[in-house]
Amino acid sequence: MASQTFVEKATLQTLETPCLILDADRMERNVRRLKSHLTTLGPRLRPHLKTGKSVEVARRVMMSDAGPATVSTLKEAEQFAAAGVRDIIYAVGIAPGKLGRVLALRAAGVDIAVILDSVEQARLVADASRKSNTRIPALIEIDCDGHRSGVLPDETERLVEIGRALHEEGAELRGVLTHAGGSYSARGRDALEQCAEEERAGAVKAAKALREAGVPCPVVSVGSTPTAHFSQDLTGVTEVRAGVFVFFDLVMSGIGVCQVEDIALSVLATVVGHQPEKGWILVDAGWMAMSRDRGTAKQELDQGYGLVCDVHGKPYDDLIVADANQEHGVIALRPGSKSTLPDLPIGARVRILPNHACATGAQHDGYHVVRDGSDVIEAEWPRFGGW
Amino acid sequence: MASQTFVEKATLQTLETPCLILDADRMERNVRRLKSHLTTLGPRLRPHLKTGKSVEVARRVMMSDAGPATVSTLKEAEQFAAAGVRDIIYAVGIAPGKLGRVLALRAAGVDIAVILDSVEQARLVADASRKSNTRIPALIEIDCDGHRSGVLPDETERLVEIGRALHEEGAELRGVLTHAGGSYSARGRDALEQCAEEERAGAVKAAKALREAGVPCPVVSVGSTPTAHFSQDLTGVTEVRAGVFVFFDLVMSGIGVCQVEDIALSVLATVVGHQPEKGWILVDAGWMAMSRDRGTAKQELDQGYGLVCDVHGKPYDDLIVADANQEHGVIALRPGSKSTLPDLPIGARVRILPNHACATGAQHDGYHVVRDGSDVIEAEWPRFGGW
Repeated sequence: MASQTFVEKATLQTLETPCLILDADRMERNVRRLKSHLTTLGPRLRPHLKTGKSVEVARRVMMSDAGPATVSTLKEAEQFAAAGVRDIIYAVGIAPGKLGRVLALRAAGVDIAVILDSVEQARLVADASRKSNTRIPALIEIDCDGHRSGVLPDETERLVEIGRALHEEGAELRGVLTHAGGSYSARGRDALEQCAEEERAGAVKAAKALREAGVPCPVVSVGSTPTAHFSQDLTGVTEVRAGVFVFFDLVMSGIGVCQVEDIALSVLATVVGHQPEKGWILVDAGWMAMSRDRGTAKQELDQGYGLVCDVHGKPYDDLIVADANQEHGVIALRPGSKSTLPDLPIGARVRILPNHACATGAQHDGYHVVRDGSDVIEAEWPRFGGW
Repeated sequence: MASQTFVEKATLQTLETPCLILDADRMERNVRRLKSHLTTLGPRLRPHLKTGKSVEVARRVMMSDAGPATVSTLKEAEQFAAAGVRDIIYAVGIAPGKLGRVLALRAAGVDIAVILDSVEQARLVADASRKSNTRIPALIEIDCDGHRSGVLPDETERLVEIGRALHEEGAELRGVLTHAGGSYSARGRDALEQCAEEERAGAVKAAKALREAGVPCPVVSVGSTPTAHFSQDLTGVTEVRAGVFVFFDLVMSGIGVCQVEDIALSVLATVVGHQPEKGWILVDAGWMAMSRDRGTAKQELDQGYGLVCDVHGKPYDDLIVADANQEHGVIALRPGSKSTLPDLPIGARVRILPNHACATGAQHDGYHVVRDGSDVIEAEWPRFGGW
């Protein structure tokens, strides 16, 4: 006779802390919101999977289990390819030493494309294409706002030289790609709509210059979470990339792209001490659990190392993680607050919303998945790290 | 006939980047330096293993393979116990939900002690001791400089009440413990020697108050890397804890505890782009590889996200990682520098010294071990994370 066992499901009260909690209802709403916005505008969504680093999250954010997708490392490309993704852009400038892994993925049937912004890189990609008898697809990175890599939209000569080096020397010129990283420091609807339009205009201008020079440019890829949400017109754009929209975070709510109530990721922590004279509550989530990201430090409302909520995810008034050591979080009221510290005895639990979902997620090896308003962990989804 | 295979050893030129490099010669010198200093002063070394999170590193830093050791998580305690460590302090305030794992380790023959700073916690530990028929050893945390947790050295009444709740209600009062976290913002020999003396005096004073009240206090545990190195007299102290001394980092060299040439940890990175008009070299080590730690931002010399060296570990003049995205590091000269950018083409490799070894290490799953002046990877040591 088989013995019967009852396996009790973990809850927010029984999990070991600190750990990462994912509210699946909020995540699903966040994904629906962007997909719905883009359906109206036209371009397809190529989500950036670097935020989740999880096959389970990826399947809920992509348009299909085969993609399309964007990744920030070849490890991500390999992990998602193993899970069936077939259409990937590796969106960090390519180095020659990484082309072997790109070619191995292509040989396995994955349409992975690389990005670059120099003739030097274009020649390296073209060389590797000829040697491997594989036209490696490459997109030219465009610098739409001066924040990182890329060719300026009006550097026509450099752009065309790169395009020709790819197209005429053995690689495939897949298109152009840009990322309005500057939108992370924009504030308010007008500024964000302007960032989105500058991103679109820069990419479309570069694509036009390439086409006028007689080289192909089928893909015009733009995106960042703020510009994806605030774009009003995407004429000429073929696809939009965005990553953090799946979870959102305090930086995004500070910009005005989401509400605090939309943030799907939090860290569950336990009270381990008090310093009542200082107004401090100590918890077991320090920077190892939250990350060192202080992305709200430059925003109007500095959220310290995170905004403190009760165990069900409701924020306390003005309560933040004011400081952090490796495994200690120091919870305190914001400077100048008129609220009072909640009564949280030793062993009490809180949930902390992160400044930056990508950084906080990376400190953990999996998600404990809950539904809005429930204490029960309905699933455990692994995450991966590394390169 | 057995076939003969030649396995070529990985080198700094062939490793996939970004990855973590550990210079074993520098590490061994750093460990010898602190051990030698403490041998002169008397107390034993109880190294903090949170910096390395590696059995291989732990064995090189502990006085014996059985310990003693300090840990910041129960995961560390369990991992090091499985490798034979038998004498551990878990140096984060205990929460009742964590006592089950502590008791399991004790039942397995590991002498693990907890720390606490309230009567509430002392009663929880005493309760768990009585229920399990195990006198759980606890140290009372002393607040020697106001930076985090602990009882003030002159709060005699609270101290004795905690001590009695442990000693008389079923637990074991093992001693007192303090950590001069404030020493991280001290500068210069005089200030650091003063931090060390305040740390010693606070712990010794608390121990004396407990003993005078008739409760035992065998252990007087102090430590931080700066105070451990700058202590001149440790009368009354039985053991010293320190962690980051094993690798050192830019924060420690900024304080003056080590030289840049002592830093044993670095991140190997590859050049993936240039923005010559801006004076930028882009590499594939962003904050995911370096961590978001900006510990030198408040120091006299801000090192950005890290100090850039050639592949052999020699620093370039004034070259730092000025900004970082998830997988992009933006290398530039320090503001005001009169140096010129080195010629680093696409595919060239650099090594980046971290602000904070504990934080940068935590972004990686292993060490690639080299010797000073050699390119060959002589060993791969795994690291673990999590709680």
